[in-house]
Amino acid sequence: MEIRKVLLTEDEMPRQWYNILADIKMNPPLGPDGKVISPDALSPVFPMNLIEQEVSSERWIDIPEEVLGVLNIWRPSPLVRALSLEKALGTPARIYFKNESLSPPGSHKPNTAVPQAYYNKVFGIRRLTTETGAGQWGSALAFACSQFGLECKVYMVRISFDQKPYRKSLMSVWGAKCVASPSMETRAGRDILEKTPDSPGSLGIAISEAIEEAVGDTTGQTRYALGSVLNHVMLHQTIIGLEAKKQMEKIGEYPDIVIGCAGGGSNFAGLAFPFVHDKINGKQLEIYPVEPTACPTLTRAPFAYDHGDCAGYTPLLAMHSLGHTFVPAPIHAGGLRYHGMAPTVSQLAAEGLIEAKAVSQLAAYQAGVLMARTEGIVPAPETNHALACVVDEAKKAKEEGKEKVILFNFSGHGMIDLVAYDKYFAGQLQDYVLSKEEECKFEECLKAYPKPQLLKSR
Amino acid sequence: MEIRKVLLTEDEMPRQWYNILADIKMNPPLGPDGKVISPDALSPVFPMNLIEQEVSSERWIDIPEEVLGVLNIWRPSPLVRALSLEKALGTPARIYFKNESLSPPGSHKPNTAVPQAYYNKVFGIRRLTTETGAGQWGSALAFACSQFGLECKVYMVRISFDQKPYRKSLMSVWGAKCVASPSMETRAGRDILEKTPDSPGSLGIAISEAIEEAVGDTTGQTRYALGSVLNHVMLHQTIIGLEAKKQMEKIGEYPDIVIGCAGGGSNFAGLAFPFVHDKINGKQLEIYPVEPTACPTLTRAPFAYDHGDCAGYTPLLAMHSLGHTFVPAPIHAGGLRYHGMAPTVSQLAAEGLIEAKAVSQLAAYQAGVLMARTEGIVPAPETNHALACVVDEAKKAKEEGKEKVILFNFSGHGMIDLVAYDKYFAGQLQDYVLSKEEECKFEECLKAYPKPQLLKSR
Repeated sequence: MEIRKVLLTEDEMPRQWYNILADIKMNPPLGPDGKVISPDALSPVFPMNLIEQEVSSERWIDIPEEVLGVLNIWRPSPLVRALSLEKALGTPARIYFKNESLSPPGSHKPNTAVPQAYYNKVFGIRRLTTETGAGQWGSALAFACSQFGLECKVYMVRISFDQKPYRKSLMSVWGAKCVASPSMETRAGRDILEKTPDSPGSLGIAISEAIEEAVGDTTGQTRYALGSVLNHVMLHQTIIGLEAKKQMEKIGEYPDIVIGCAGGGSNFAGLAFPFVHDKINGKQLEIYPVEPTACPTLTRAPFAYDHGDCAGYTPLLAMHSLGHTFVPAPIHAGGLRYHGMAPTVSQLAAEGLIEAKAVSQLAAYQAGVLMARTEGIVPAPETNHALACVVDEAKKAKEEGKEKVILFNFSGHGMIDLVAYDKYFAGQLQDYVLSKEEECKFEECLKAYPKPQLLKSR
Repeated sequence: MEIRKVLLTEDEMPRQWYNILADIKMNPPLGPDGKVISPDALSPVFPMNLIEQEVSSERWIDIPEEVLGVLNIWRPSPLVRALSLEKALGTPARIYFKNESLSPPGSHKPNTAVPQAYYNKVFGIRRLTTETGAGQWGSALAFACSQFGLECKVYMVRISFDQKPYRKSLMSVWGAKCVASPSMETRAGRDILEKTPDSPGSLGIAISEAIEEAVGDTTGQTRYALGSVLNHVMLHQTIIGLEAKKQMEKIGEYPDIVIGCAGGGSNFAGLAFPFVHDKINGKQLEIYPVEPTACPTLTRAPFAYDHGDCAGYTPLLAMHSLGHTFVPAPIHAGGLRYHGMAPTVSQLAAEGLIEAKAVSQLAAYQAGVLMARTEGIVPAPETNHALACVVDEAKKAKEEGKEKVILFNFSGHGMIDLVAYDKYFAGQLQDYVLSKEEECKFEECLKAYPKPQLLKSR
């Protein structure tokens, strides 16, 4: 028997998050007037303690005991050597992954849902609202709110709400209320339904409904929570990479390549940022965020100022963006169908500290099935994109005859997204590649906004 | 932060299974003629190495390295202190559980699917057939076969096949073929469909189809696999209890009460048998298998000779049985809807070494929701039955002011069975209690068979 897993005890859990803002320069968020936005302006939406984290440039930020006391339901997550996958590929590479699928909701999302619920709770907030597309984030927040006794209301994009009824059920088990968006519960929702009664909804609409409800609570006890993109979300996720570093150290390994799929950027950032810190300090390694060819934010889109949501309600963020009016092709990796990218991840890409890859949907599923049939666990559609890149790199190592060490983030399992595998086997999935015509559209969409500076952190 | 989990490393995994047949006397299986059946008679159905295990009375049986090398994908499983559940109940009891939901298919079933696939493989078998009701066993065998390169064919009861499409998808991901039963692929299936084209199927029909296909392969390279009831299945599951004992020893604990839900008996046996061994050797503790009031095999039915399947194809087994013609009420815990009980578990109940409890469906879901909202993880419907008993015992400990140590088996998660939670919240689930009239029926069904002896092992 070869040992597969490197475990940490709960005592060995990181006690601080790593804040990449200490190590890089960033273009600030801008208001609608093009001026730098003040943190206070966000206070109707987020509690002040989270806003402080959002703008902090402290390198290490303490993880509260109460947060550790919930994260330890499933953390530390195992670092797993993908022995069977290596054998199937006949590669000299050693492949490791962090298994983030073992959390109760089945993905990395609760790593930030738990601290967000906690900070809202201590700030005196009683109720959180949010939006969810495929449902991973909504169920993670539902779980986190149940741990801290907060109410939770999730606006779920109508088309996913209808296609994935299990996600709603899961949120109900944790006591959250999940409604299809557009809904009759907000002005934004009612306006849409009046014009388009059979609207399939969108993340943009769901975000506006969730924010409207949070801001509209005159008692001041409701806030909104976001599951990706923002700096404090990336911060909370770094526990993944910090654990991974400890685990690799235990077995005397260090990665040559770090890989994570990237939609809004949070699971990628969670694994990669602590290694980016090393790279900034002179370590040699490659770091690859992987996105779908259908939504190639980092590989095809410009580094620009754009809104984080489709409706244009949020401040302008300096990020790689396909334009906030961009509607990605209907690939099954709902978590990767985002027009933008976390400003921190975008900044790293812009200055060449990380190098984005794009993979097609079919290659992703092919890699996912290989993973299931070797390592046993069934990956989420998003995770399959990281896997396609892992397979490519393992094959490259074979061709080059190099013993590379590859580390990737197994961001979530696919137990509630199996329908897509059925379609894959039935030959009903297709590849999407962004056309030149669509590229022109996002150039059009972005041209009115200021251009961010090309900052160099080093 | 209070520590929740007691971990073992892969090096600390048990290297031998515990065989309870070394410690108890058993009534032998009988053929249709009422005579003791020879092991050879089973050879068209099972490979000889598994049949030898089925009848072995060696107390400790080595776990092959190749089996350990797959079990370690998820094993050793954590022993978890249910701190948040304890707090919610305000109990002085310390509650621990083995989390068997972390296996790739999400339940304890692969603990036996993996060795069964392995033994078939080394015996030269290329293909396994089986039946599945709710789908947990079918997906576990699909996973195990994918690990050893065996083909796998699963006959899934038609009504579940239609209601739970995700289970079939999951089996496909692991490369198994899953067909609805009754099917046109066997004589047994065709006969039923001719008479009843819209038959919803049953476990009995599915078993006959799976056995017919295995036995009918004239190349001799196909065998049948069973996921519960038989001695070798219980044997393989004892890795759960053996790990639990090591883990409790590490923290200086020993259970006063051991609890597992019981359908065919395998998850209960897996946790409990190593503790039964202690009890036989003088330890003081209570051991409770928990069944649904809708299918009260141990609490209401006699210890009798009966068939393991509904159609009457299998040998007569000495067990608690509601009669093989008994059709349990449609509770959602599909894995507990079985008319019989493992002969080993039945023997222990008959001689008072374990004491069965029955709980209602609503109490089970109430406990399951409490578990999800405290410990975070969402239990399978079957597991909820164990939880209802845990809650009862924790409350009793509170009333009595006693610091009892309760250990239970968290046999599986409910991520693919969320529909039942929806029904629970909507008030659409009901309790079922076996009527006196139904009791008369099983007495009628069993009266033609020989009576087993009331053996005493001590």
